[in-house]
Amino acid sequence: MINQIEQCVTAPQGFRAGSIACGIKANSSIQDLALLASDVPCTAVGTFTTSKTRAAPVLLCQERLRSGQAQAVLVNSGNANCATGAQGMNNTYRMTQSAATHLNIEPALILCSSTGIIGRQLPIEKIVAAIPRITLDRNGGNTFSEAILTTDTRPKRMALEFQIEDRIVRLGGVAKGAGMIYPNMATMLCYITTDAALDHAWIQDELSTSVGDTFNMIAVDGDMSTNDTCLLFANGLAGNRPINAQHQHNAVFREALHMLTTHLAREIVRDGEGATRLMTVHVRGARDKANAIKAARAITTSHIWQCALTGGDPMWGRIVAALGACGCELQPDTFDIFLGNLQVAQHGLATAYSQEEAQAAMTSIEVTIIIDLHIGDGQATAWGCDLTHGYIDENTLYRH
Amino acid sequence: MINQIEQCVTAPQGFRAGSIACGIKANSSIQDLALLASDVPCTAVGTFTTSKTRAAPVLLCQERLRSGQAQAVLVNSGNANCATGAQGMNNTYRMTQSAATHLNIEPALILCSSTGIIGRQLPIEKIVAAIPRITLDRNGGNTFSEAILTTDTRPKRMALEFQIEDRIVRLGGVAKGAGMIYPNMATMLCYITTDAALDHAWIQDELSTSVGDTFNMIAVDGDMSTNDTCLLFANGLAGNRPINAQHQHNAVFREALHMLTTHLAREIVRDGEGATRLMTVHVRGARDKANAIKAARAITTSHIWQCALTGGDPMWGRIVAALGACGCELQPDTFDIFLGNLQVAQHGLATAYSQEEAQAAMTSIEVTIIIDLHIGDGQATAWGCDLTHGYIDENTLYRH
Repeated sequence: MINQIEQCVTAPQGFRAGSIACGIKANSSIQDLALLASDVPCTAVGTFTTSKTRAAPVLLCQERLRSGQAQAVLVNSGNANCATGAQGMNNTYRMTQSAATHLNIEPALILCSSTGIIGRQLPIEKIVAAIPRITLDRNGGNTFSEAILTTDTRPKRMALEFQIEDRIVRLGGVAKGAGMIYPNMATMLCYITTDAALDHAWIQDELSTSVGDTFNMIAVDGDMSTNDTCLLFANGLAGNRPINAQHQHNAVFREALHMLTTHLAREIVRDGEGATRLMTVHVRGARDKANAIKAARAITTSHIWQCALTGGDPMWGRIVAALGACGCELQPDTFDIFLGNLQVAQHGLATAYSQEEAQAAMTSIEVTIIIDLHIGDGQATAWGCDLTHGYIDENTLYRH
Repeated sequence: MINQIEQCVTAPQGFRAGSIACGIKANSSIQDLALLASDVPCTAVGTFTTSKTRAAPVLLCQERLRSGQAQAVLVNSGNANCATGAQGMNNTYRMTQSAATHLNIEPALILCSSTGIIGRQLPIEKIVAAIPRITLDRNGGNTFSEAILTTDTRPKRMALEFQIEDRIVRLGGVAKGAGMIYPNMATMLCYITTDAALDHAWIQDELSTSVGDTFNMIAVDGDMSTNDTCLLFANGLAGNRPINAQHQHNAVFREALHMLTTHLAREIVRDGEGATRLMTVHVRGARDKANAIKAARAITTSHIWQCALTGGDPMWGRIVAALGACGCELQPDTFDIFLGNLQVAQHGLATAYSQEEAQAAMTSIEVTIIIDLHIGDGQATAWGCDLTHGYIDENTLYRH
């Protein structure tokens, strides 16, 4: 049994977190620098943006995670430290060195992330001056989850508790991200902690799979960022034998991880810039999973369909256009489309549905769209949101 | 020398056009059915959407153009005749049969197009009742260009005059399209007429190339439509020897065709749903043309960059994010970015540009962005527009 509990990244044993306002953001009272640390070194893995203009902190994480170990992560919001060259890279070293001194940990065990505007150097002196003043707390997860936000309107976090070998194990996570959410991971940062002991190779595979099914299946605007990062720290303080492919309880951990990443992924989309409605798109009957993914994501990223959702207008013809254009295998005379439980198209043609019921299905706070391609047994689920004036205002006026 | 002249598709000898309000659109005073015909059969070629849910009229055009000949095209706006199955296909036959009777032309020489809402059957009785009442006129090109519009705010048209073998030759064109403009051709219809005699295989190649460099390089919203069609009719009444790959004047025709399609493509983007600014993106120094196209289009379709354009905000970091994510080959420390004539990034880093000048470059009615990747000699140009409340309103509230 998996139970949801209070707190987030500091729920598992031996993790502490804290944050501070160091002045990266124009409003100097906003917390913009956060630190999360384990009392002992962790097995650590990550997944990252595939952008060719990856930010400096992403390069640092990728380099340091080769060891398979890490103990802390320092995160700043307000500046992405991207397109900042050698100076940007040096600044990541200075930040992590400063955190290492503060925590009395080897610098090689400190990771870092940045999120915010691209193309400006970090105010590094402000940052290194502030790091020693960050106080870590056993209940600091929530403050950490708030300090990493940019255009988000609220934090995203969760903690779960379950048993492995009769021991209580906890898994916590926080995420941030609201725009640039697609196609790989989203403009998002995610930090996951657990006190379970985990086998390194096993958890790298599990995290990649879980991210693939959740964070890689959400879309706000079709823009992929330079800074996307998902890190997982496992400090082993629960005392279980390291979970691997042979461990009799690995399915419980896998399920908990999937619950956590699904929750955080949906929370990101629900809080998409300007979003008023969340959409869940299930595609089934595709030739294979790859085709199903293509179709599901095409619908969540169709701007005309997102606008139909904004207006609560059941113009399912726009789904037809998105399906036809997405490159997935399909037969124009076999696909079915459902809005909620209402079938609006059968064998590629309009059914005699009630316009009133269709409108009702489109105006709920969460709209589910089901497509059955009737070709094979591939299926996938993607999540997205509507496209509103709020999205444009956020991205027209946003600037620190 | 190529001169621009009055009129559009009826500028070349032997073409007539007309239109009528037949009641497909809710407002029954709006012209929604248009007919264009040549006095004699034409060499005819086309390019079409690659959607897998192509509308019935697209299938009809593709079938009939196998003969390489056509003489007329009937176009309705307000309904796309897509996702309409066998009945939709039958309706295209009835429409073209009716036009054939009216014009006294073989049905096999009549093409048709539809544009508008997807998933509803055409009001076919209204349409076939109206066709005999369409009056064709030697100056009917402008009325034709207006009747094919949907969310466009204005018609797009052009006519050119030039010499081939000392004969006066004319080339005219009209286009419609404002949303769903990407990635192949746009939700657009385009009709091109000429009185030049053209070799069939040659002009099919030339049209495909010209469409590839123009209509396939514009983007409003990343949605490809089910109905995109570009047709070219050449009736040969100018009396020249058919232009082919060996013809000494083929370069003049090619240049005129490129001028025409470039003009119409830019007019479509300039009139993009809600658009207030046109952007032209030149990418050079790419590994090859395919890489340059990928990069140029990624910038025109980045919604966060479109929003920067809306706000007139020179946040070139969003160009970096779009470049990094697009999959084109690039080195993070070699690319240069210019907004107008102002260089804002060099070797992947911010230059010491003046914020005032950058803002000035971003607030002109037409913004030019130049990217030099400094890798090879591939180049490409793409056109796009900003993303505004107007786009969302158009797509939230649009319904006939």
